[in-house]
Amino acid sequence: MNIKTAITASLLILSQAISGMTHAALPDPGLHVEKGRTALVITDPQNDFLSPKGVTWGVVGKSVTANNTVENIETLLKSAKANGIPVFISPHYYFPHDHGWQFEGALEKLMHNIGMFDRKDALSVEGFEGSGADWLERYKPYIEDGKTVVTSPHKVYGPETNDLVLQLRKRGIDKVILAGMSANLCTESHMRELIEQGFEVAVVEDATAAAQVEEGDGYAAALVNFRYIANTVWTTKEAAQAIRGN
Amino acid sequence: MNIKTAITASLLILSQAISGMTHAALPDPGLHVEKGRTALVITDPQNDFLSPKGVTWGVVGKSVTANNTVENIETLLKSAKANGIPVFISPHYYFPHDHGWQFEGALEKLMHNIGMFDRKDALSVEGFEGSGADWLERYKPYIEDGKTVVTSPHKVYGPETNDLVLQLRKRGIDKVILAGMSANLCTESHMRELIEQGFEVAVVEDATAAAQVEEGDGYAAALVNFRYIANTVWTTKEAAQAIRGN
Amino acid sequence: MNIKTAITASLLILSQAISGMTHAALPDPGLHVEKGRTALVITDPQNDFLSPKGVTWGVVGKSVTANNTVENIETLLKSAKANGIPVFISPHYYFPHDHGWQFEGALEKLMHNIGMFDRKDALSVEGFEGSGADWLERYKPYIEDGKTVVTSPHKVYGPETNDLVLQLRKRGIDKVILAGMSANLCTESHMRELIEQGFEVAVVEDATAAAQVEEGDGYAAALVNFRYIANTVWTTKEAAQAIRGN
Amino acid sequence: MNIKTAITASLLILSQAISGMTHAALPDPGLHVEKGRTALVITDPQNDFLSPKGVTWGVVGKSVTANNTVENIETLLKSAKANGIPVFISPHYYFPHDHGWQFEGALEKLMHNIGMFDRKDALSVEGFEGSGADWLERYKPYIEDGKTVVTSPHKVYGPETNDLVLQLRKRGIDKVILAGMSANLCTESHMRELIEQGFEVAVVEDATAAAQVEEGDGYAAALVNFRYIANTVWTTKEAAQAIRGN
Repeated sequence: MNIKTAITASLLILSQAISGMTHAALPDPGLHVEKGRTALVITDPQNDFLSPKGVTWGVVGKSVTANNTVENIETLLKSAKANGIPVFISPHYYFPHDHGWQFEGALEKLMHNIGMFDRKDALSVEGFEGSGADWLERYKPYIEDGKTVVTSPHKVYGPETNDLVLQLRKRGIDKVILAGMSANLCTESHMRELIEQGFEVAVVEDATAAAQVEEGDGYAAALVNFRYIANTVWTTKEAAQAIRGN
Repeated sequence: MNIKTAITASLLILSQAISGMTHAALPDPGLHVEKGRTALVITDPQNDFLSPKGVTWGVVGKSVTANNTVENIETLLKSAKANGIPVFISPHYYFPHDHGWQFEGALEKLMHNIGMFDRKDALSVEGFEGSGADWLERYKPYIEDGKTVVTSPHKVYGPETNDLVLQLRKRGIDKVILAGMSANLCTESHMRELIEQGFEVAVVEDATAAAQVEEGDGYAAALVNFRYIANTVWTTKEAAQAIRGN
Repeated sequence: MNIKTAITASLLILSQAISGMTHAALPDPGLHVEKGRTALVITDPQNDFLSPKGVTWGVVGKSVTANNTVENIETLLKSAKANGIPVFISPHYYFPHDHGWQFEGALEKLMHNIGMFDRKDALSVEGFEGSGADWLERYKPYIEDGKTVVTSPHKVYGPETNDLVLQLRKRGIDKVILAGMSANLCTESHMRELIEQGFEVAVVEDATAAAQVEEGDGYAAALVNFRYIANTVWTTKEAAQAIRGN
Repeated sequence: MNIKTAITASLLILSQAISGMTHAALPDPGLHVEKGRTALVITDPQNDFLSPKGVTWGVVGKSVTANNTVENIETLLKSAKANGIPVFISPHYYFPHDHGWQFEGALEKLMHNIGMFDRKDALSVEGFEGSGADWLERYKPYIEDGKTVVTSPHKVYGPETNDLVLQLRKRGIDKVILAGMSANLCTESHMRELIEQGFEVAVVEDATAAAQVEEGDGYAAALVNFRYIANTVWTTKEAAQAIRGN
């Protein structure tokens, strides 16, 4: 975004805020957490997004830090485990054959260029531990407790290419508390697809974060779409309360 | 968005513009229009979005007018028809039984509350002509020419619930030029799902528009996500050139 | 199937029956009908399959008659309506543009050749009443009672191209009693896709029927796959009991 | 199937063969192999189906042996590799968390009961080599050549829960030569879903096999549905010729 566009955008935002537009307030249908029907779903809780050593830290680090994303995801995991809410993880991996794709969208191309989420082979864990594709170390006790369901990797942004929807349905889940990385890509695509599949979805707006680059602020975009599309949007604090309250 | 949030957002945009962040420039993979493999897909070219009499004009009218959306969509239709690029329309209809859904996301609830895209029955066209669910009058010559493929209605935002993907594949299409309403809802969900299904997608950024309400600017959000996710983003002028050039 | 193959197949069937193979008995997980979570889904209850005037009667008529399919489907509809079990209809329509597909599987090609399920346009009901695409007359009181959910048409065999899954989910349904036409094509593809989507499915084996042609007996094939794949297989009598018993 | 039913079925088959029913001959649309657009897809080439030590050999062994399935799949692999036809493998794995599903269809229940395709964890290959979930030893040179695309596991029978469709599309494939195990379950569900997704599919009828148990002959059922639904059905010899001929 160049300076002229930025000023224009800012003036638009400010004038909208002043004019109020209160007549158009969106409904907030809410989500009532019911044990046995509700799960916590985390997208991409992996080093390449959440560790300062990850390949995207340069563009997502500020947003991750500003939101306190790393701690907030852990709060959600801890809260879900303590209250019998099942946890599902939808990871992102690329294998050597994925680098043979004949065409890619902008961010797919970028992710492949920088070797994001790369693994050697689906049937090899050589070099995996501690790599960019591995879980953030502090989440391992929650993910590797023998109860968390780790789905197959999604391959673009949404769960269309993995077994998340089936895994949720096979356990009677129809309500999802959604968080993880990154806000306008995998998290938002998961939100959209889960809604298309007839789930109720609450997105936790500060347990996610996104790239903020010249071409646009991914986090700001995601916030708008969470509010428009999800059943409700919570802070981590609100999510933890809702989880405890059931 | 309240004034404090608006000022914060504006400062963020301006500081980003000044700091440049040029090191993070996103790739732009582009899309090469090939006859026989490329189609124009328009979402929701219907009165409720595009006519001043439509039920959403109060919140989308400014964006539609600013982008010149109505004329730009017509330019795309005319250009595609003149150059042998097949046209697919993915409409949005709600029937009485859709009002019996037990839960809805925010905008779904709003659309149902205001009677958007309502039809009496899938097997009745009583009262349909000129209604909010009908095509914008000026598009009818293009849509009703006996060649345009009109898919079944999508029921949330994306083509997961209709036959668009099959119709495209059955005609050998793997590249899509995408436009229509509204930018961050149906258009963006179509973009995301087409990408998940392995299509190349070019989005036409000024042949769409979106709601701009207190809770967020749908058009600004969509622009960011188009740029991050699509194979490329065009203006109507660029799209028309690409269509002619093949 | 020529006579030699037929004799071989018959000998195989008989020898299997005699040898028993009792060690390999398949489990029968069953399906417990719960009000509010269970629906009746009928595929293609249309003249082209079920009326002696329909275009496929020559190949499906014997099977429809032998199973008492027409009456059994009505028994299910009556039973569901009387016991508060919601009814969903997944119809099959072809529009003129569907005849422009560049490739088709064997039965798709046949259906298009014989003009099966043809309609003039999705936005026209001209000539529809009483046509091969229309409901069997005796089912109309059940389908047109203002409560039955009629989905968009499926376009190949399964519900992948329509909104059936979403419509079921939006009403909290996760168990399906499945019947309709034809057994090994649309009914079986609906069974398979509903199972992939995490529904429990009971198929009603005598409220369906199929083509029986030289190339193979569609009904016999479907019976095997219903038994292997569904949660359980019922007769109409058993289904009606299960519906009443909830 | 009890003896009475078996005799009835046999009489039906024989009477059909005698009566001819030649008027109902199904079309055979065929499939033209084009390099760059055509792939070989193999489902479940794993020990639990194809090795005499596999957990299902008791019920599928006769069919595998009768069809010469093991050799025929190898012939297809060799032929594809020699002629530049890309190979995609869609495997079947179950992890400990899959055993926590709350409901299952008949064969899903059976597969879980007998520990079929079991692996310790998606991120562990401990004990994997030579297990029932591993590739048949003789296929490893083809699958592990660094070029074959191995998708994520499917979790029921079809590719709805993995990335096969995306992987094919990302390499420009729209025609599939399909083989593997087992005929009426994963192979047929892959055929059906690929057809729903707009691929052309040729099934290789003797490079597959199925369970033949008291409740029904899975292979006979699959043969009927292959013929009804696929674009064409080939023997391994015909498939190899088609692959060479391109």
